[in-house]
Amino acid sequence: MSSFTPEPTDDLSIATIRTLAADVVGKANSGHPGAPMGMAPAAHVLFTRFFNANPKSSKWFNRDRFVLSNGCVLQYILLHLLGYKLSVDDLKAFRQLDSLTPGHPEAGHTDGIEVTTGPLGQGFANGVGFAMAQAHLGAVYNRDGFDLINNYTYVFTGDGCLMEGVASEAASLAGHLQLGNLIVVYDDNHISIDGDTAVAFTENVEQRFLSYGWQVLHVDNGDSDLAGISDAITQGRAEKNKPTIIRLRTTIGYGSKQQGTHGVHGSPLKADDIQALKLKAGFPPDKTFYIPKETYDTYKVAALRGAKLQSEWISLLSAYEKRYPNEHAELARRISGKLPDGWEQTLPVYKPSDPAQASRKLSEIVLSVITPGIPDLIGGSADLTGSNLTKVKGSTDFQHPSTNLGTYAGTYIRYGVREHGMGAIANGLSAYGGIVPFVATFLNFVSYAAGAVRLSALSKHQVIWVATHDSIGLGEDGPTHQPIETAVHLRAIPNLDFWRPADGNETSASYLVALRSKETPSVLSLSRQNLPNLEGSTIERASRGGYVLHEVEGEDLTIVSSGSEVSIALEAAGKLKAEGIKTRIVSMPCWSVFDSQDQQYRLSVLRSGAPILSLEALSTTGWQKYSHEQYGLPAWGASGPYQKVYEKFGITGTNIAAVGKKVVQFYREQGVKVISPLVKAL
Amino acid sequence: MSSFTPEPTDDLSIATIRTLAADVVGKANSGHPGAPMGMAPAAHVLFTRFFNANPKSSKWFNRDRFVLSNGCVLQYILLHLLGYKLSVDDLKAFRQLDSLTPGHPEAGHTDGIEVTTGPLGQGFANGVGFAMAQAHLGAVYNRDGFDLINNYTYVFTGDGCLMEGVASEAASLAGHLQLGNLIVVYDDNHISIDGDTAVAFTENVEQRFLSYGWQVLHVDNGDSDLAGISDAITQGRAEKNKPTIIRLRTTIGYGSKQQGTHGVHGSPLKADDIQALKLKAGFPPDKTFYIPKETYDTYKVAALRGAKLQSEWISLLSAYEKRYPNEHAELARRISGKLPDGWEQTLPVYKPSDPAQASRKLSEIVLSVITPGIPDLIGGSADLTGSNLTKVKGSTDFQHPSTNLGTYAGTYIRYGVREHGMGAIANGLSAYGGIVPFVATFLNFVSYAAGAVRLSALSKHQVIWVATHDSIGLGEDGPTHQPIETAVHLRAIPNLDFWRPADGNETSASYLVALRSKETPSVLSLSRQNLPNLEGSTIERASRGGYVLHEVEGEDLTIVSSGSEVSIALEAAGKLKAEGIKTRIVSMPCWSVFDSQDQQYRLSVLRSGAPILSLEALSTTGWQKYSHEQYGLPAWGASGPYQKVYEKFGITGTNIAAVGKKVVQFYREQGVKVISPLVKAL
Ligand SMILES: [Ca+2]
Ligand SMILES: [Ca+2]
Repeated sequence: MSSFTPEPTDDLSIATIRTLAADVVGKANSGHPGAPMGMAPAAHVLFTRFFNANPKSSKWFNRDRFVLSNGCVLQYILLHLLGYKLSVDDLKAFRQLDSLTPGHPEAGHTDGIEVTTGPLGQGFANGVGFAMAQAHLGAVYNRDGFDLINNYTYVFTGDGCLMEGVASEAASLAGHLQLGNLIVVYDDNHISIDGDTAVAFTENVEQRFLSYGWQVLHVDNGDSDLAGISDAITQGRAEKNKPTIIRLRTTIGYGSKQQGTHGVHGSPLKADDIQALKLKAGFPPDKTFYIPKETYDTYKVAALRGAKLQSEWISLLSAYEKRYPNEHAELARRISGKLPDGWEQTLPVYKPSDPAQASRKLSEIVLSVITPGIPDLIGGSADLTGSNLTKVKGSTDFQHPSTNLGTYAGTYIRYGVREHGMGAIANGLSAYGGIVPFVATFLNFVSYAAGAVRLSALSKHQVIWVATHDSIGLGEDGPTHQPIETAVHLRAIPNLDFWRPADGNETSASYLVALRSKETPSVLSLSRQNLPNLEGSTIERASRGGYVLHEVEGEDLTIVSSGSEVSIALEAAGKLKAEGIKTRIVSMPCWSVFDSQDQQYRLSVLRSGAPILSLEALSTTGWQKYSHEQYGLPAWGASGPYQKVYEKFGITGTNIAAVGKKVVQFYREQGVKVISPLVKAL
Repeated sequence: MSSFTPEPTDDLSIATIRTLAADVVGKANSGHPGAPMGMAPAAHVLFTRFFNANPKSSKWFNRDRFVLSNGCVLQYILLHLLGYKLSVDDLKAFRQLDSLTPGHPEAGHTDGIEVTTGPLGQGFANGVGFAMAQAHLGAVYNRDGFDLINNYTYVFTGDGCLMEGVASEAASLAGHLQLGNLIVVYDDNHISIDGDTAVAFTENVEQRFLSYGWQVLHVDNGDSDLAGISDAITQGRAEKNKPTIIRLRTTIGYGSKQQGTHGVHGSPLKADDIQALKLKAGFPPDKTFYIPKETYDTYKVAALRGAKLQSEWISLLSAYEKRYPNEHAELARRISGKLPDGWEQTLPVYKPSDPAQASRKLSEIVLSVITPGIPDLIGGSADLTGSNLTKVKGSTDFQHPSTNLGTYAGTYIRYGVREHGMGAIANGLSAYGGIVPFVATFLNFVSYAAGAVRLSALSKHQVIWVATHDSIGLGEDGPTHQPIETAVHLRAIPNLDFWRPADGNETSASYLVALRSKETPSVLSLSRQNLPNLEGSTIERASRGGYVLHEVEGEDLTIVSSGSEVSIALEAAGKLKAEGIKTRIVSMPCWSVFDSQDQQYRLSVLRSGAPILSLEALSTTGWQKYSHEQYGLPAWGASGPYQKVYEKFGITGTNIAAVGKKVVQFYREQGVKVISPLVKAL
């Protein structure tokens, strides 16, 4: 027996979505009408029959999450119909400057948008992150009779997303983790931008997802079989130990004269085509943005159902508070996004006599001391746990309990060798709320996840990357693993803090700022090799992004450096002193945080009067902003014991002293006052 | 009946490989002994029974290609045994500075290494590229009785590679393309760096590859079932319409006391363990790098088989030359890597009165005129053909003939939405020889392929990226699609030319240099919006990477810019002239090519005497190297019609004139001579 009870307004509502899609794209003269028209029935069934959310309280914690992975206009239309803060005028402003309806949905910009999509594959993986977050928080906080956190995550996805490697990675992990509350609807319309998917995408998608351990369902007529859609969703919800994918055969641009062709994918429908579409639906053919009252009424019912569910949930939460006051307090704090009071006090502090350690090890020490007090921290590595040093002793793996390898309450995620999937999943974990995800790989392989990292920053997800083996200092693995361009790439991403700490205090500082920055992702670039603890470094000073580590008055030279090269700069300064050249050392672990300091401070750190030389065992690109002269790697690194690799490239105290001397002489010969590179017109 | 005839030396040879692996890693005290020990039988069977290559002529064109995707010491051992230019001393120098045996195999560095591997998943996708190259060149040049190009491609891969999205993308495409000459051996040892693969990788790999359309075989005892291995390879070779994957169940570190555990993955074996291993093989337990004469003899037979095959092939080629002189001449030219004489003459030249066009359109025009004369150009797009404008009219798709969508002789590749796979496949196409691959997507999504792009540059593969929609100028798609950090990321990669041409002549110049640069990949960053043809641009001038587009003597200001912003800089110069401010304009389409010019030239372009202001609708990071002041995007772009987005960010003639005026005033007030940013100590 079908789960579905038809309503007289179903066809009307679906026609409303289809004609609205045509109108929205038509008015913007830009966008993708085809997929929204094809997916209108699935969206209608999902939102009127199943979806639990309160449009008037879009941040209700136990709401169902919806992700439109092939991001497009459909979502804006649904948000409007459901009563989120999105008016018809907003729909009319689709793809116009500063509107609430930009070309692709942006999290934090438009009410009801959970994650930023458009770049293909990302939304799919974000959805896996949502489902993991729900599974984890449910396992930690639910109690008998208190099923507080049990929402579903629904993802609509297309061929394009499924072709992307990031989606494959996330799908494989989702199957491994047996995420029962994840339901993906795959819009199998046989069309992508290059035309028929026969030209490039002929794999058996159902079989592929079976291989990942998913429940695989299909609906042959996604254009009008509402009962079939409803039954499949029902079956997806019932399966508690597997994620579900529903392959929905649809006709792109259904109802258009060009339906089923590539012509309706990325271009507006012609005026006569839209008119015919409206006539067929019984709508006034010349009226644009027509929305029958019956459609609004239908969606109002859905919205009221959500509001009722939320109010019941609030009652449940009150009862929970009485019964489990500690758990309630912690959950409430986590939902608010505030970290526990005083966690900063546990950050390790070092003095110069403390033994040299690799900053990846210093990172492990930080994680070991702060994790017990911050249950929000859910971390993992892309199969480099022993190298990244991200698993805190005694932590439990996040695994389906049937595996006997861990539980859903576990806080350590085994991502497998899936960097891009990991990054996109972490965006989902962060977007869900209550979780501060950290992820780990070698710095060089953060590049595999570049597509997800930039969306962290754009969407303001607080994701922390533990990026170890951050230079030629990794030694033997060689140039295939030694980052050159990675740091400047990440430094150029807006709203991303790239930290390269030089010692223990700076490592603590990087965690301090990263954890305080609720709307900014951070990449912590950490060494494989041991680093001495430096005289002059403190958490407070390093927290400003750049500071004078070693001060001298009337300097002949300032060397500005980061991470593992700061101690080499100090060594060079010692050698230069012996030759009568007074050298200041500035440590600059984080450009973006330094840039956010007031100008007076910045000019006091990188002051006029003597040349400034930058030193980093990476590409010099970008250091010209902070220095007059740059020393770094001329091209690729090399394979060998790390000390020998440093020698090969002249990054030693002796050679940097020689370089510094050359710089001082050059500017002396120039005979003009040296002005700070920060003194600028713009 | 089995295809396999055992030889008395088989066990001895396999033991040699296993003990050598332990010794090589032991001496270096760094590396991965476990996988080579586990894969020794498969390697032995492949190289002694099947592999067609001549170690004394490692570039023979029709050789079988071998890729060790989970890059490690096994390949060095095989190269040595087979007689490539790699001595025992080279093996002893594993992972030492400047040795022929760096931590991961590097193409172009060590004789017999086809592609650079180590970064997981890349080698798998390179192998797909090899198989595509073979299929294509065979279809173009083979004739009845002249099966000139028919080699196999063998890829050894591990769990790590198969978890990577880039491998999933390439595998799906390989299945679609029905690449019969591709044989992948999957080392299913149930171990990855984090321990048992049960923690993260539990998908059904066989089913997954069936879903992609591969032939899927398995050998249950990869540790000693040589006949089983041989039979599977034989079956793989016999299947002509599907790629083959052989799941080989092996024991990592087979023979070690720690076999089958994560302990042998990435650390040297203990001394007593190595001794026991040698004793068991009947080798002197204290002798390191022991290679029995019988093992050398066995591999010599394999090498001689390859030499004989090559000499037969050379005879065949001579006969082909007589029968098909034109085809022979073209094939010989392609193998040599030389482009046809005079192709440069066909490059379009523009004058200012020619209509404004988008540089993606200018790129299409270049491709249209040069493609007929350069059959080496094999291009495609990641499902953005109509936007990237990469399909030249009349070109045929590269498809299996059974699809009726094209043929293997076709030159246009439908990559699907698989940017990372596309980049890594293109590396394989380039490494095969005879092909200059170009690939296309939006500039923003080149980031998805960053892992492959950096390996193009490191490995010196001539791959050309047609990267359109290169700024906020793409307009409505919004910040999710508008690159900010992408240009500086690519500019910081050594041995990669990032071109951002400003008009028609500069677009021609970028193709000219990209096609002449046989050992350098290039990314051509192209606009969606129309660009006027500029007074002063020529192919010759632009080919120097940067030049004075608009000269004035005694200038007050120089604006240096690239791509779509150069014409805006010119407009600003006009407005400034009206206010009595003399402004020079430098167009700098390619930093790295400009950097390679002599210093005198560079200083003549970016000369001292007046402030230099950079202008680009991207992050300003890095422009400090070439300018005193920078104007660009402060953070993310915005969704809207592109002219409005440019206005929002002040990138208009009017505003840039105002900015320029401010700069001029500031440096006047400073009252000191302005020195070129290129005048430096280092
Ligand atoms: Ca589609
Ligand atoms: Ca393995």
